[in-house]
Amino acid sequence: MSSHHAAAAANEAMVLREDQGPVALLTLNRPAARNSLSRAMLAALQAALDGIAADDRIRCLVIAAEGPAFSAGHDLKEITAHRGDADAGRGFFEDTMAACNRVMQAVVGLPQPAIAAVEGIATAAGCQLAASCDLVVAAESAKFCTPGVDIGLFCTTPGVALARAVPRKAAMEMLLLGEMVPAAEAHRMGLVNRLVPRGEALPAALDLARRVAARSAVALRLGKRGFHRQATLPLAEAYAEAGTIMVENLLAEDAAEGIGAFLGKRAPEWRHR
Amino acid sequence: MSSHHAAAAANEAMVLREDQGPVALLTLNRPAARNSLSRAMLAALQAALDGIAADDRIRCLVIAAEGPAFSAGHDLKEITAHRGDADAGRGFFEDTMAACNRVMQAVVGLPQPAIAAVEGIATAAGCQLAASCDLVVAAESAKFCTPGVDIGLFCTTPGVALARAVPRKAAMEMLLLGEMVPAAEAHRMGLVNRLVPRGEALPAALDLARRVAARSAVALRLGKRGFHRQATLPLAEAYAEAGTIMVENLLAEDAAEGIGAFLGKRAPEWRHR
Amino acid sequence: MSSHHAAAAANEAMVLREDQGPVALLTLNRPAARNSLSRAMLAALQAALDGIAADDRIRCLVIAAEGPAFSAGHDLKEITAHRGDADAGRGFFEDTMAACNRVMQAVVGLPQPAIAAVEGIATAAGCQLAASCDLVVAAESAKFCTPGVDIGLFCTTPGVALARAVPRKAAMEMLLLGEMVPAAEAHRMGLVNRLVPRGEALPAALDLARRVAARSAVALRLGKRGFHRQATLPLAEAYAEAGTIMVENLLAEDAAEGIGAFLGKRAPEWRHR
Repeated sequence: MSSHHAAAAANEAMVLREDQGPVALLTLNRPAARNSLSRAMLAALQAALDGIAADDRIRCLVIAAEGPAFSAGHDLKEITAHRGDADAGRGFFEDTMAACNRVMQAVVGLPQPAIAAVEGIATAAGCQLAASCDLVVAAESAKFCTPGVDIGLFCTTPGVALARAVPRKAAMEMLLLGEMVPAAEAHRMGLVNRLVPRGEALPAALDLARRVAARSAVALRLGKRGFHRQATLPLAEAYAEAGTIMVENLLAEDAAEGIGAFLGKRAPEWRHR
Repeated sequence: MSSHHAAAAANEAMVLREDQGPVALLTLNRPAARNSLSRAMLAALQAALDGIAADDRIRCLVIAAEGPAFSAGHDLKEITAHRGDADAGRGFFEDTMAACNRVMQAVVGLPQPAIAAVEGIATAAGCQLAASCDLVVAAESAKFCTPGVDIGLFCTTPGVALARAVPRKAAMEMLLLGEMVPAAEAHRMGLVNRLVPRGEALPAALDLARRVAARSAVALRLGKRGFHRQATLPLAEAYAEAGTIMVENLLAEDAAEGIGAFLGKRAPEWRHR
Repeated sequence: MSSHHAAAAANEAMVLREDQGPVALLTLNRPAARNSLSRAMLAALQAALDGIAADDRIRCLVIAAEGPAFSAGHDLKEITAHRGDADAGRGFFEDTMAACNRVMQAVVGLPQPAIAAVEGIATAAGCQLAASCDLVVAAESAKFCTPGVDIGLFCTTPGVALARAVPRKAAMEMLLLGEMVPAAEAHRMGLVNRLVPRGEALPAALDLARRVAARSAVALRLGKRGFHRQATLPLAEAYAEAGTIMVENLLAEDAAEGIGAFLGKRAPEWRHR
């Protein structure tokens, strides 16, 4: 086994992928380290996301985690170890932030919708990973937190995802106080879409994912991309962009089939290329 | 009657306008087709909105609908019929999206505040029309939905209005799942301002409209335009823009009258040009 | 005493500053005029904010008010008096809006987090001042209101702060109707972080401030600035900006100390430069 393949195998072990028909399930699998986002974990996640992005058979993604924590964020031991580097860690820190930023944007930019299934705590970059998903299903016992302020490292990058998910003052409260936010409160804020009993986040997320994945691949793909593109544009630009996407969607075979099926009161059959 | 006038008459019948003093009420009047936004309906709406925009006597608009549905969105039969066009519908789809985008932006850009009165379902572009109004009054039995995903046509353009009314994940949930959202849930999300008992959306919206319309026309006009202009700008630009509008408003006769009346503890008399 | 110093003394009386260790408390002190934001009050606030911005010992700011009103907004008598100016007030209005815009942006741009403690009413620019703070603590009996529409002067500049704190339609409802919004409703909208019994807004805000101020100065400074910078950027730019700030924060002494303390299970000792 080449060192490249050995690394790939280690990465695969760190993030498990299981496909259930058109739904891909990624499971963070470093429970002893509370699924912290070490560089190896980030690389494994990136590779898994790249694989899913390129996989036309997959129409929805669920991100879950093994063990009591969804993810505790960056790996602080790894960060601390690199303070001894010749550059006092700067190079490592820059590469780490770049890798993490790329993973989070890969979730948002994934062609398929992504759903987080959160049990236990999702803190710092772990909270950011959940917030970066299109939908979040959380156990009532789950907790969200951006506690960087407690360790002298403000959760500035998690704040990027938070500021786009919850009202401004709610995000600032999480970032400035670093308190654990119970799932019910996160739901009230808009960070969580569905609250379920403890232990049911994954089955509930998979259920939503199956419902999403039963839809037309082309509609989901155009729709997710279009949503994120238009959301921050000025209104006229947003409508110009969205209108172009609607025309493309209308001309796709699945829209003809779907609208025809609706008018004919029958179930549609998607092409699913 | 020329064909132009005949078309105008048909349009008028499709969207009824009734003025109650300074309040204009537009009623979508194609109940048999669940007020779907056919090209004729869009043209009638555009013409009605253009008329109101140019009418200095009107200080607030209410948009309501005849029959059990507020609006079911685009007219799918009309869309399907044009798949037989030489260009497989592209030209018709482009024109339809342009017309629809123009109507929605005309509601946002209308000089007068617009209030939707929603009974029954508001789906797809019908949901978008309600979301495009400045305020939404809904019956408790009303429902909001963006179900395009069920027919292979993601509600990308409705998503433009939704993304500006509700938190990001709530919008994505509506768009990805296409489920009916009860008015109480839409209220919790921020899509609905006031919930009222079934059958009372219109009287409640008219009541709000009368209260809005009792205010200074120039203040309403500057205020609505200013709000939508500043809302998406960076903070410094937003304040520069808003500050200029405040000075213009302060120099208007109605501000002198209104502030004078307030200090003199009497009711103001607006000029209402 | 020079006239400059006399003015400074008058300004100081209008806005009281009291430091409690790393927490600065600014108290609007013109209760007889419901703490309206006259030009003198704005100048006093600006001077106080500039002083705090330059004061490395301060790590959190609380803004409170003397008397039953937090602030009633602009000083309408002063505005009216200047209608007699040769330019009908234009110059005064322009200067007033510039001064007010500068104060509000100074709160947002302050290196230290700012917390509003609201008892009684916060109306128009008074509501804007509270909304401009990073966090808002409000008594259950407090009320928020943007009633400019009642006096022919739409609250366009307060709308800048509101549109960034609450959902779009909630902001429009406040601006178009001018109704008093009880603190509980403002909390539901996202304008208020914490609701407390009447009379306890200040102690509760000071308590939060002490908790914020117990954290690393450099983390708070980088974090607050980073949050406001990234919040309105497109996602890729936001992550680029936030990533750079994270690296800077990681390289700061306090992050090494904080992470080391966390891993060593001891309390951190901040450098607090």
